[in-house]
Amino acid sequence: MIKVGIIGGTGYTGVELLRLLAVHPQARLQTITSRGEAGKKVADLFPSLRGYVDLSFVEPNSKQLAGCDVVFTATPNGVAMTQARELVAAGVRMIDLAADFRLRDPALWEQWYKMPHICPELLQEAVYGLPEVNREKIRKARIVANPGCYPTAVQLGFFPLLENDLIDAGSLIADAKSGVSGAGRKAETHVLFSEAADTMKAYGVAGHRHLPEIKQGLEGVYKKPVGLTFVPHLTPMIRGIHATLYGRLKKSDVDLQAFYEKRYASEPFVDVMPAGSHPETRSVRGANVCRIAVHRPQGGDTVVVLSVIDNLVKGAAGQAVQNMNIMFGLNEKLGLNSPAVMP
Amino acid sequence: MIKVGIIGGTGYTGVELLRLLAVHPQARLQTITSRGEAGKKVADLFPSLRGYVDLSFVEPNSKQLAGCDVVFTATPNGVAMTQARELVAAGVRMIDLAADFRLRDPALWEQWYKMPHICPELLQEAVYGLPEVNREKIRKARIVANPGCYPTAVQLGFFPLLENDLIDAGSLIADAKSGVSGAGRKAETHVLFSEAADTMKAYGVAGHRHLPEIKQGLEGVYKKPVGLTFVPHLTPMIRGIHATLYGRLKKSDVDLQAFYEKRYASEPFVDVMPAGSHPETRSVRGANVCRIAVHRPQGGDTVVVLSVIDNLVKGAAGQAVQNMNIMFGLNEKLGLNSPAVMP
Amino acid sequence: MIKVGIIGGTGYTGVELLRLLAVHPQARLQTITSRGEAGKKVADLFPSLRGYVDLSFVEPNSKQLAGCDVVFTATPNGVAMTQARELVAAGVRMIDLAADFRLRDPALWEQWYKMPHICPELLQEAVYGLPEVNREKIRKARIVANPGCYPTAVQLGFFPLLENDLIDAGSLIADAKSGVSGAGRKAETHVLFSEAADTMKAYGVAGHRHLPEIKQGLEGVYKKPVGLTFVPHLTPMIRGIHATLYGRLKKSDVDLQAFYEKRYASEPFVDVMPAGSHPETRSVRGANVCRIAVHRPQGGDTVVVLSVIDNLVKGAAGQAVQNMNIMFGLNEKLGLNSPAVMP
Amino acid sequence: MIKVGIIGGTGYTGVELLRLLAVHPQARLQTITSRGEAGKKVADLFPSLRGYVDLSFVEPNSKQLAGCDVVFTATPNGVAMTQARELVAAGVRMIDLAADFRLRDPALWEQWYKMPHICPELLQEAVYGLPEVNREKIRKARIVANPGCYPTAVQLGFFPLLENDLIDAGSLIADAKSGVSGAGRKAETHVLFSEAADTMKAYGVAGHRHLPEIKQGLEGVYKKPVGLTFVPHLTPMIRGIHATLYGRLKKSDVDLQAFYEKRYASEPFVDVMPAGSHPETRSVRGANVCRIAVHRPQGGDTVVVLSVIDNLVKGAAGQAVQNMNIMFGLNEKLGLNSPAVMP
Repeated sequence: MIKVGIIGGTGYTGVELLRLLAVHPQARLQTITSRGEAGKKVADLFPSLRGYVDLSFVEPNSKQLAGCDVVFTATPNGVAMTQARELVAAGVRMIDLAADFRLRDPALWEQWYKMPHICPELLQEAVYGLPEVNREKIRKARIVANPGCYPTAVQLGFFPLLENDLIDAGSLIADAKSGVSGAGRKAETHVLFSEAADTMKAYGVAGHRHLPEIKQGLEGVYKKPVGLTFVPHLTPMIRGIHATLYGRLKKSDVDLQAFYEKRYASEPFVDVMPAGSHPETRSVRGANVCRIAVHRPQGGDTVVVLSVIDNLVKGAAGQAVQNMNIMFGLNEKLGLNSPAVMP
Repeated sequence: MIKVGIIGGTGYTGVELLRLLAVHPQARLQTITSRGEAGKKVADLFPSLRGYVDLSFVEPNSKQLAGCDVVFTATPNGVAMTQARELVAAGVRMIDLAADFRLRDPALWEQWYKMPHICPELLQEAVYGLPEVNREKIRKARIVANPGCYPTAVQLGFFPLLENDLIDAGSLIADAKSGVSGAGRKAETHVLFSEAADTMKAYGVAGHRHLPEIKQGLEGVYKKPVGLTFVPHLTPMIRGIHATLYGRLKKSDVDLQAFYEKRYASEPFVDVMPAGSHPETRSVRGANVCRIAVHRPQGGDTVVVLSVIDNLVKGAAGQAVQNMNIMFGLNEKLGLNSPAVMP
Repeated sequence: MIKVGIIGGTGYTGVELLRLLAVHPQARLQTITSRGEAGKKVADLFPSLRGYVDLSFVEPNSKQLAGCDVVFTATPNGVAMTQARELVAAGVRMIDLAADFRLRDPALWEQWYKMPHICPELLQEAVYGLPEVNREKIRKARIVANPGCYPTAVQLGFFPLLENDLIDAGSLIADAKSGVSGAGRKAETHVLFSEAADTMKAYGVAGHRHLPEIKQGLEGVYKKPVGLTFVPHLTPMIRGIHATLYGRLKKSDVDLQAFYEKRYASEPFVDVMPAGSHPETRSVRGANVCRIAVHRPQGGDTVVVLSVIDNLVKGAAGQAVQNMNIMFGLNEKLGLNSPAVMP
Repeated sequence: MIKVGIIGGTGYTGVELLRLLAVHPQARLQTITSRGEAGKKVADLFPSLRGYVDLSFVEPNSKQLAGCDVVFTATPNGVAMTQARELVAAGVRMIDLAADFRLRDPALWEQWYKMPHICPELLQEAVYGLPEVNREKIRKARIVANPGCYPTAVQLGFFPLLENDLIDAGSLIADAKSGVSGAGRKAETHVLFSEAADTMKAYGVAGHRHLPEIKQGLEGVYKKPVGLTFVPHLTPMIRGIHATLYGRLKKSDVDLQAFYEKRYASEPFVDVMPAGSHPETRSVRGANVCRIAVHRPQGGDTVVVLSVIDNLVKGAAGQAVQNMNIMFGLNEKLGLNSPAVMP
């Protein structure tokens, strides 16, 4: 049994980790910390876990965490890096669900996250935890930077096009729509029910933190610079990301469907749907899957890729568990083998 | 492995059965019928099941069904009874998720369902599949009448009060609110998104088919007639029933919380919450649980019970699987041991 | 033109007042205060008002307010009473949308609102602004206590029964469901979209501040004590209250429909629907109407009343404008004559 | 007073027309037809109109309609054209809210609507009712083809860019998100609440009927062919369209904001928001406005335009009333001067 710790388990990625780990056959939840809720039973804060999680939140305490095999950090950006050196030194492997280790370039990180990175050497070492590109590195990683939700959906959608040099990489467009849970569980006016229901809007058009993360990932496979316009939208659903991706084909005689099917043939959590499909976000609600459909409207030179995930699962906690499975040599699907909850 | 058949798997209780059975460790889904969708792959109709269910819908065919150990009927009311004799004769056990076998009195059944019952002898024999009252009978049942969604939430909420004769049984009130999936997957105007979102209404105040079912169940434990006013409401959520129950206490010196905790202490799927709780329907979303809280506002003589279930799980498919587990001597929690999906 | 001021216009009742007053033919919006947003243009905070409201929020300033004919206070409880004496002394009439002047008994007020009332003499003088009972007093009132949302729906539903002594007044039940905007625009976790969507729950079963207000109103017409169990519920819709009311009839030979139709025959904003109706909250969305239907299930002795309002209109800002119209001798429907927005 | 008839008033555009016309100071609703609901009171079908519309639906009857000054057709595609010749011959002006007169080329119309056009001469004559380009022609039109919802939002968003030749017209992208009411009030499975809530999806990527309509409109102002990729999405809200438009700038030294502000300076129903804005669909809920914001992320060569409307108002019934106002020489804002309903 893997001894698991969670730092900061009171947000949505935290409670989703708890949901998955509580019934994971090879994980034993050992400690969960929260400054704000220390002393409170986890199941009192999240009654959905009554009968599944008997722990109480505790004050962050390096001793308890040092006894874990792996620690998930589900904290606001900038917190995980304050604990990373100590945990790594203690031989604890770390999966960070925040953004602390996602950008390899410390200057770029500082530019987007508005604070200096305090352990740049670990930033260098950390492995970006997208198994579909980094599976082998993840196996041995001491620190895994679990990808953002938008970056997961967008990268998985673009990879086959870029890896095979099928599109003009200078003018990619990612129009992405997210459920409101992507904004977290912090009380803020713009995500109140009465503000976010029955309406939608774009946000962050001038620049969103997931933009450099996506670019870094796409350039990682393309090996050259890419130009990307990324427009996120807030949509009135709890979970789900729907990325609609646009690219200009370089040549017209390509079997796009075949490229996609081949690329993801052996991926357990990427589902290339039949040609002509329109994946719905609910088809992955609660499940660790990315479903993708590729279109070429009217046979023109524009390719449209539809890529959906559950932002809290394949876009966060589920992918983190997938990474844990890889890191500890388990079957990658362990604890993640449930169909989506639909309707 | 239990060989399982499903008749009529294209509605919401059907697809929910598929979700649960697809990963049930002791069930093998063998055949699934649908007149309307015969020939179509299940996962084409319900992409959430891609990778989990490889079957196609077939025309109803008694041979295939006769080879099953158990058949679930998830058909409109009046269909299951047309197949019951044949299945039972073939030694197939049957769990009906419709209403065909819920009311013991054929005249009452005809009054509420507007058609004569065609196998009244099986109606007599059928066991009402609410494990919390009928567990022993369910073990040996040939036909289990899986309870309605409202009746499950309301009965579990009232049982401790009636079994212990704590309230005036002549004036019970059940004000129940249901998510829209309770109305089924049939295309009807009043359950369109644009009709049912951001609004709510009562319906069937003059009389709803679940009224006689609830009364039968309550009288079964109370052994005397009960008077019940039942008002269902359609609320803008997909899943979930919230029953708010009102009764007049006969005496004031009672520890209601203790009665509830004692009654359900050994029930795996009924959760009596701490005094003062207000259960939310999302705390059971996707899970086979009924959560109950009991209140006595201002210490007066009115008791208020809050009882929540997921109408498709403990109110339908989950309870059906629970019944299957009981019928086949399995651990009652097998295949039903997942926390709710929250948020 | 009536010169209008608004104190505290940044919440939902405030912005709804702005929506209505901006196109009211006899009102001129003169000043609107907000400590937090002073200096900001109203239409920058609420873009729905672009082109309709050109004012900016200003710091609360008694001079500007003293020049108004009427001031609406749409502030948190306890603020309006700090300004009442000064405004009244300046000859400004006041319509308070908070609870400061709703309970006539200062001790009761203090018990429920957890602070002493600082101008009990004005509490005595204030008129409870439910036109359907107090129209004549409202005409001359210096301070109108605009009713709460639940109290409006519940009282209008119960009045005909109590005024005509048709039910047992000792055991009234009001099961009320509210949209989330009833909780206000303050950022709090439990009303986040991801917490309040696709779920529902009861709250405040032990006691809600609208309970004493409703009792006071019902006893006002009944002239004797009433016993009331009031259970509010949070439901996933933005606007709307659906009150489901239960009472025990004292005699069986009554034409309930006739009592209701007669009672509200000349009320411009109460709509008694045909017998057998089930009003939907969306049928009053954005409109200053209370729609009521009265039922007697199975001809028994329980009466069920369904009463719906838009909590922000007839339950708050619309009723406040209705009160203003009455106070200033205008046609009561002025500025309130728009059909509900449906769907 | 303009005598108004409505053909087919039982869908969402029909009931929205009724909402607007019921309180329009210069319109008198004279007759409303419906084959399916003839004999039923309008307010029985739509209780939101109780007290505002006293008419009953009648069988389509050319006599009654011939006495009208204007007839709105809110019927399924292909119906209006069967009545057009007769109405026009009788001197009745016609505003068609369906697609019958939107495409000038009969062959193109037949290709997309799968039936031959039966009055191509009127198709030639009909004026496309987008006041922002055709105001003068609309004044005298006998037949106005009221634009589709997507086309309204997309065209208004692209016009300033194309009219001033600022972008590469060969690779326009319109990623559009619609509320579910855009699909109409017909009972169909995919728009059931339980299918369309808490989820989203693209649809019609291979080709949507609004594509040729948008292209025709854009080419009308650009005077040359344009290339457009149009991807509509179904989103879980009742009303609202959010179009996110992408284009490649031809030169970098342009003040986009100024172009937009100038273009729409005198338009009563197009609101160019301040630079940096992100319009929300709820800011136009129930209102006849298109709000637009123009962005240029990171100062690059991609322009992003955000354009929102209420699909039932500026995208249908409101624009139809605007057209009526123009046709009959009224103030264009008459009956349309209400702020959006928010929240």
